[in-house]
Amino acid sequence: MSLNTLILNSGADRRLRAGHVWIYSNEVDNKRSPLKQFAPGEQVLVESSQGKAMGIAYINPNTLICGRMISRDTRYRLDRSLLVHRINIALSLREACFDKPCYRLVFGDSDALPGLVIDRFFDVFVVQISTAGMEAAVDEVVAALNKIFTPQAIVLRCDGKMRTTEGLESYIEVVQGEVPELCPLEENGVPLLAPILTGQKTGWFYDHRDSRAEMQRHVQGKRVLDLFSYVGGWGVQALAAGADEVTCVDASETALEVALENARINNADDRFVGLKGDAFDTCKALIQEQERFDVIVVDPPAFIARRKDIKNGERAYARINNMAMRLLKKDGILISASCSMHLERASLIDIIRSNARELDRTAQIFHQGHQGADHPVHPAIPETDYLKSFSVRVLPGS
Amino acid sequence: MSLNTLILNSGADRRLRAGHVWIYSNEVDNKRSPLKQFAPGEQVLVESSQGKAMGIAYINPNTLICGRMISRDTRYRLDRSLLVHRINIALSLREACFDKPCYRLVFGDSDALPGLVIDRFFDVFVVQISTAGMEAAVDEVVAALNKIFTPQAIVLRCDGKMRTTEGLESYIEVVQGEVPELCPLEENGVPLLAPILTGQKTGWFYDHRDSRAEMQRHVQGKRVLDLFSYVGGWGVQALAAGADEVTCVDASETALEVALENARINNADDRFVGLKGDAFDTCKALIQEQERFDVIVVDPPAFIARRKDIKNGERAYARINNMAMRLLKKDGILISASCSMHLERASLIDIIRSNARELDRTAQIFHQGHQGADHPVHPAIPETDYLKSFSVRVLPGS
Repeated sequence: MSLNTLILNSGADRRLRAGHVWIYSNEVDNKRSPLKQFAPGEQVLVESSQGKAMGIAYINPNTLICGRMISRDTRYRLDRSLLVHRINIALSLREACFDKPCYRLVFGDSDALPGLVIDRFFDVFVVQISTAGMEAAVDEVVAALNKIFTPQAIVLRCDGKMRTTEGLESYIEVVQGEVPELCPLEENGVPLLAPILTGQKTGWFYDHRDSRAEMQRHVQGKRVLDLFSYVGGWGVQALAAGADEVTCVDASETALEVALENARINNADDRFVGLKGDAFDTCKALIQEQERFDVIVVDPPAFIARRKDIKNGERAYARINNMAMRLLKKDGILISASCSMHLERASLIDIIRSNARELDRTAQIFHQGHQGADHPVHPAIPETDYLKSFSVRVLPGS
Repeated sequence: MSLNTLILNSGADRRLRAGHVWIYSNEVDNKRSPLKQFAPGEQVLVESSQGKAMGIAYINPNTLICGRMISRDTRYRLDRSLLVHRINIALSLREACFDKPCYRLVFGDSDALPGLVIDRFFDVFVVQISTAGMEAAVDEVVAALNKIFTPQAIVLRCDGKMRTTEGLESYIEVVQGEVPELCPLEENGVPLLAPILTGQKTGWFYDHRDSRAEMQRHVQGKRVLDLFSYVGGWGVQALAAGADEVTCVDASETALEVALENARINNADDRFVGLKGDAFDTCKALIQEQERFDVIVVDPPAFIARRKDIKNGERAYARINNMAMRLLKKDGILISASCSMHLERASLIDIIRSNARELDRTAQIFHQGHQGADHPVHPAIPETDYLKSFSVRVLPGS
């Protein structure tokens, strides 16, 4: 089957040659290849203005990023065979890095599978599709998983925000097998449960794995506060590492119930405290009550969704980090994280600096964390490098 | 004993208030407190233009950075008591992070001890002093170490480049005890030896500890190339982790001899290959001979010493990374590091991106490394955050 051709404007091939894989709608030569003539999800041959073949992409004429490259080799299509090949390549990296089959198996562009995320919980696979081009291949994704693995279940968590922009409906579907309400996984040797059908995103955030392992080295016998805890990714791993007491704060009662259950399966529910409420309000109350903690984890949801939110977002990060620092004991550890791609590492370091000064304390950043190996960074796509965390020792001023 | 007063220009207190600890010579009010009247190394009371006490600093009238803050509290001086206090604080971080007493015990400004570095090899302490202010306290440093520890030996490696600028002579002196030619240490569970009297800097680079631990996860049964190997910090740890064969490349015959000795004490000298030569020339030869490796470590000395070297330095990093990538097998791992503070993380990522494209390969950065916890970052001093490393999977193009 021959493909339609999409022709780029003069010079618009430069970014693709440099390694990027996105095509913006204003980079298309609309006279020679009107975008509107392509169907959402259609695969095309991409040509430079001079007629040089750039490779294969899938198209959505209705979005700002109107194309995503599938391959630089024009012989390849996004089909079952390519999916099997690329998922196998992704798998070999994860198998080299992790003991247990619990990880992000596919991380979109970084694994050369734009629009596709697959999280693996042993033999349960949770698939997130965010683009029309990948949605067109959903059956092939399921088939590819069955070709490589013996899935106990495959879940489509196709309810991300980006789908609206792409003109796709939201749905959650167990396409194969049966899944328990809470799905078992293991992270850093700790057994855990994730609400894969009802929780945030795929039900679990594997990306902070390395930073949580680092945290585990500093919590034995300590009193820990986990802000924006969700189902206890940090807090329960702190309990498993011997924390005396962990207080998880979250606005969702359901999330805290799962966090408690996670504490329970680690025989640590007697050291678990759940506080339902807004993290800002809860911190304010804890400050008033003169509570103090040895280790505090600040891992908020993305306060900066779009570039224009940077200023307000940075203020929110500054405020919550300030309150956390007030709640620390004299020689305490602040673990400050952000998943906002728009928050620069340097900006979060500066927030730590200014809060320490304001409170007349001395800060030492002794560990810098990034997303784990199952969230590889594509060197041409800065957006794939979104996660940061800092382990900070907060001492009296000197 | 009352101190002389150094008065800052109007507005020059702002950076200090923000948390920085350096005073530049053009920030001093030379009319009210002529810099030239202070002796190199003298401690002074620092005042803002408005007469507000900022704290205590030591001064060198002959250097661009003419002052370094000792304390924001005007009651404190740089003396034995302060040294003991601050070394103890530094020690408690290291003891919380490391099993064995082998680490950078004091990391200058980040441990509130400007001009002082102390590396610890069990009970042998190697002291580096780089400023006139700290040199004035050298006897107190030795006394402080004796107060806290029971040193087997104390070595002054006072031969760093910065001393010339500070008007200090270079010397290497064993001030106490006796030291073997090769001093034992342990890193990531691997026994090693460092030439603390004759080697580079303090004899060992502890800063890459975490990245070397990460490397160890990927070398079992593999063929490894360690460029700019020095005494085998990376290469020998790869051998200890089960690498089939490690080739260390260094321009120094002596360094390679120590590397071989390090391999020997790990019962791995039969898997060790030393190649004496310039890394660039050696790579060229290896490419011509069509040699290929599974894992290649590129950890050059700082190619960028000063800001004006950035362009040439980046070219050198690009060239060596390009050659390394050519020497990788089809699904190989490149570990690309830089200790140049002036090389941005983003620039090194871009070097990886452009080399991959040029060679029609696909790069996935699956781990980002930083200096270890014994080299904490001072959030107000970007210069303290100098080390970077990237673990990159280099695949065929797609």
